[in-house]
Amino acid sequence: MSHTTDTPLLPNFLAGRWQTGHGRGSTLLDPVLGTPLVRVDNTGLDLAEGFAFARDQGGNALRAMSYGQRAAMLGEVVKVLQANRDAYYDIATRNCGTVKNDSAVDIDGGIFTLGYYARQGEALGDATCLLDGDRIRMGKDPVFQTQHVLLPTRGVALFINAFNFPSWGLWEKAAPALLSGVPVIVKPATATAWLTQRMVEDVVKAGVLPNGALSVVCGSSAGLMDQLQPFDVVSFTGSAETARLIRSHPAVAGASVRCNIEADSLNSALLDPAATDGSEAFNLLVKEVVREMTVKSGQKCTAIRRIFVPRALYAATAAAMSTRLARTTVGNPRNESVRMGALVSREQHDGVLAGIAHLKTEAEVLHDGAAVGLVDADAAVAACVAPVLLGSQDPVKAKVLHEVEVFGPVATLMPYDSEEQAFELIRRGEGSLVASVYSEDPAFIARAAAELADSHGRVHAISPDVAASQTGHGNVMPMSLHGGPGRAGGGEELGGLRALGFYHRRSAVQASSAALDALARTGVAFKP
Amino acid sequence: MSHTTDTPLLPNFLAGRWQTGHGRGSTLLDPVLGTPLVRVDNTGLDLAEGFAFARDQGGNALRAMSYGQRAAMLGEVVKVLQANRDAYYDIATRNCGTVKNDSAVDIDGGIFTLGYYARQGEALGDATCLLDGDRIRMGKDPVFQTQHVLLPTRGVALFINAFNFPSWGLWEKAAPALLSGVPVIVKPATATAWLTQRMVEDVVKAGVLPNGALSVVCGSSAGLMDQLQPFDVVSFTGSAETARLIRSHPAVAGASVRCNIEADSLNSALLDPAATDGSEAFNLLVKEVVREMTVKSGQKCTAIRRIFVPRALYAATAAAMSTRLARTTVGNPRNESVRMGALVSREQHDGVLAGIAHLKTEAEVLHDGAAVGLVDADAAVAACVAPVLLGSQDPVKAKVLHEVEVFGPVATLMPYDSEEQAFELIRRGEGSLVASVYSEDPAFIARAAAELADSHGRVHAISPDVAASQTGHGNVMPMSLHGGPGRAGGGEELGGLRALGFYHRRSAVQASSAALDALARTGVAFKP
Repeated sequence: MSHTTDTPLLPNFLAGRWQTGHGRGSTLLDPVLGTPLVRVDNTGLDLAEGFAFARDQGGNALRAMSYGQRAAMLGEVVKVLQANRDAYYDIATRNCGTVKNDSAVDIDGGIFTLGYYARQGEALGDATCLLDGDRIRMGKDPVFQTQHVLLPTRGVALFINAFNFPSWGLWEKAAPALLSGVPVIVKPATATAWLTQRMVEDVVKAGVLPNGALSVVCGSSAGLMDQLQPFDVVSFTGSAETARLIRSHPAVAGASVRCNIEADSLNSALLDPAATDGSEAFNLLVKEVVREMTVKSGQKCTAIRRIFVPRALYAATAAAMSTRLARTTVGNPRNESVRMGALVSREQHDGVLAGIAHLKTEAEVLHDGAAVGLVDADAAVAACVAPVLLGSQDPVKAKVLHEVEVFGPVATLMPYDSEEQAFELIRRGEGSLVASVYSEDPAFIARAAAELADSHGRVHAISPDVAASQTGHGNVMPMSLHGGPGRAGGGEELGGLRALGFYHRRSAVQASSAALDALARTGVAFKP
Repeated sequence: MSHTTDTPLLPNFLAGRWQTGHGRGSTLLDPVLGTPLVRVDNTGLDLAEGFAFARDQGGNALRAMSYGQRAAMLGEVVKVLQANRDAYYDIATRNCGTVKNDSAVDIDGGIFTLGYYARQGEALGDATCLLDGDRIRMGKDPVFQTQHVLLPTRGVALFINAFNFPSWGLWEKAAPALLSGVPVIVKPATATAWLTQRMVEDVVKAGVLPNGALSVVCGSSAGLMDQLQPFDVVSFTGSAETARLIRSHPAVAGASVRCNIEADSLNSALLDPAATDGSEAFNLLVKEVVREMTVKSGQKCTAIRRIFVPRALYAATAAAMSTRLARTTVGNPRNESVRMGALVSREQHDGVLAGIAHLKTEAEVLHDGAAVGLVDADAAVAACVAPVLLGSQDPVKAKVLHEVEVFGPVATLMPYDSEEQAFELIRRGEGSLVASVYSEDPAFIARAAAELADSHGRVHAISPDVAASQTGHGNVMPMSLHGGPGRAGGGEELGGLRALGFYHRRSAVQASSAALDALARTGVAFKP
């Protein structure tokens, strides 16, 4: 375990024991100060042993429990995480460069989601299988019927996660997996792996999960997919290019390993055609867009990238948003006057600047916060990018603006000429996670929902009556579906108990009433 | 359009018009007599035009209708097919080589499934969207809530179908697709494409569907996948090798085109450990296995391939099955004394014989019907294979027997030593479409269902009380799920209204109560 550097090497937890890699590993940095924090490495780990251990030991132990017992277990995980919250905020400040409010989205968002599934699962009680729908007669004689059931898949769930949510990204997937009775192996993105690793460490050390139920492998993802067998599942959040590799891997393409993908998304905000300058809907749009652009420095897959307003309101919207954006102080999250911290790494910083340049081939700059200096941070070192609002008066001709996701505090304002054209322009994203609608008219909202729901995993409508209670365009709530078709990857996560579906297999049991009665005694009605 | 041969060339229906290919095409044969019947070809067709036409004209017309209107349209399709039933039986005899009872499974099975979806869809009435689950509050204030909805995907459904069910294979997929509002393009397997093509021709000529709602392309599948766009879906039934190619295609791997696969399956039959020689459960097993082996000459993806009995009953089961199998007359389906016709082609005939030889490397022959000659058929020409029952006393060591699907009238009998071992052996199929259980004990059936449901899309239990009403191990009923994990391809078809899910996109609409009320007026509760 000796290493040539003083930067601590984080151990992996696999096959029920802590194991450090045999290589030099990758060093995680403070994205504001540029200083090294910890290293991660998994060189030389016996992945086959680790996956088999999780599948057998972890899976058998979890499946021997009822939904209610597993829900109680999630409740214990919540307690462990809450007890260590301060350490997580500290890691987030250092490794993610986020201000406290932004760290909360990740840390408390993850704990909230776990707690939600603990409560939902409790209601499933002593059952060990889910009854999907009612019994249906198969013919004239009612003695022979069919009952659909859901049972946990006998495999592991591999999570290959994104850098922007090291906490929430783990728990929003692990909560439904563990509640389902499926053991989890998480491979966090290297840049921010520390928080994931620490949370797993705390949970493992607290002994609240059966051994093998939760494993963490940090560093390279090489070889992980090769371990997958037909009843395993894999859930990936990240780039479209990696998504393509995962879906082409023999485990998925050949062995039918179930695969959930969340990839790129060019989410939209749509202002009602009847809105006027300064109307309630107009103000709600301006406020929400500015918030979405700056929360977590725009590093959310759900953040607003495209804003569509009636053509007459283009200039007024640009002005109102620019005024608000100008108030955003950017810099070192340790300074209390700072509202927006860093991007996750200098690589992302460079990538976002390159992305902005790409968008600018089709757009004008309406606001660029870079004119104001950073607070307590060195612009040559810190991964800080100030908010940038772009605009294009010809969105029909635009191509890049509908196709390129810039993963930072960047959005593009575009005018539309008719309601129908607005829907068409939004669909040019070819499948997104969220579209939000700003309107005082329930009929318009319903119409927009019906037009946009098939190309978006979520439609979020903000009207004056919900201004105080609405949960935010970009905020992923556990009771609602998260995912989107096409470019967004085609996956489905969360959505309350719907999330359990990915970790269960559905089967039709055709049998006599007596046999179905006996089966029903082990089950509970599945009502997502 | 002139051709050098007298064998008629079947036209394709694409882009709303009948189009013949410009090549020589492939000739379809009578598998009993070896004579040419018709040719199919799609050389030179403008596929991009055809897919765009279906997507735009067909899709817009279908989505403008309510579920109830589309259901009524399916009812009209049923009438057209029923009016032309005699022609379909004639084509099946000539091109599929099946006896009347076996042709019925395909032809009447397809019409029955269409009729089932017509009735189910009628109940959805005037709605144009499906409300998935109840509204859920998002916080303390009940004014902001989430409602999950399902809306038809704005794309085409491409079906690449298998040779064994040219009728049912089309309609079991097209019924839920059309009911959902999604246009269909079917590419039937070449060997038996005639029946599919004729049915589409009759339906198109009857004018009961909007133009573009149903297209048929016969011949090569080259280029079809290249036409798919993010909101299209593809459903494939066939070999695991082709399935792998489809899932690796850029449309699926890169553009998230939704993909449903039904591939290989080594379905099992399991006799209760408490059964005895001549007991009711024993007799039910023997009867069902023999029926399953011979229906459609074993060319059903759901047919029983592996039979598991308590070790003490191995010899008795072999004897009882052999006695029944010996009664199966094989040959020309035009002869009324023939119970089992031909395989679909001489290629399949050769493949099945090679497969039997492969299985024999691990199994003994318990019964071989080949000793009796064919009725009214020339063994050197006809694609007839008599039923073969194999057996292995060491199924734990066997590998090929659990992995190789021989697509003909072939099954392997294997003894087990404990209930737990029986479940383990069945799972060695690594995911199958169906397992059937033969037992007089409801508790055993429930236990077996809970153990096998996660690795099988369907568990079919036959007990004495349902002996008269049970629908058959291999018979796919529209109210039950059809599909299976792992080797079986991981797909889900049918299962009542569950089948609509594949053709819809789910979305969470988060909005005020007033907006959700307006949306709900266009929807109907989705209760699969």
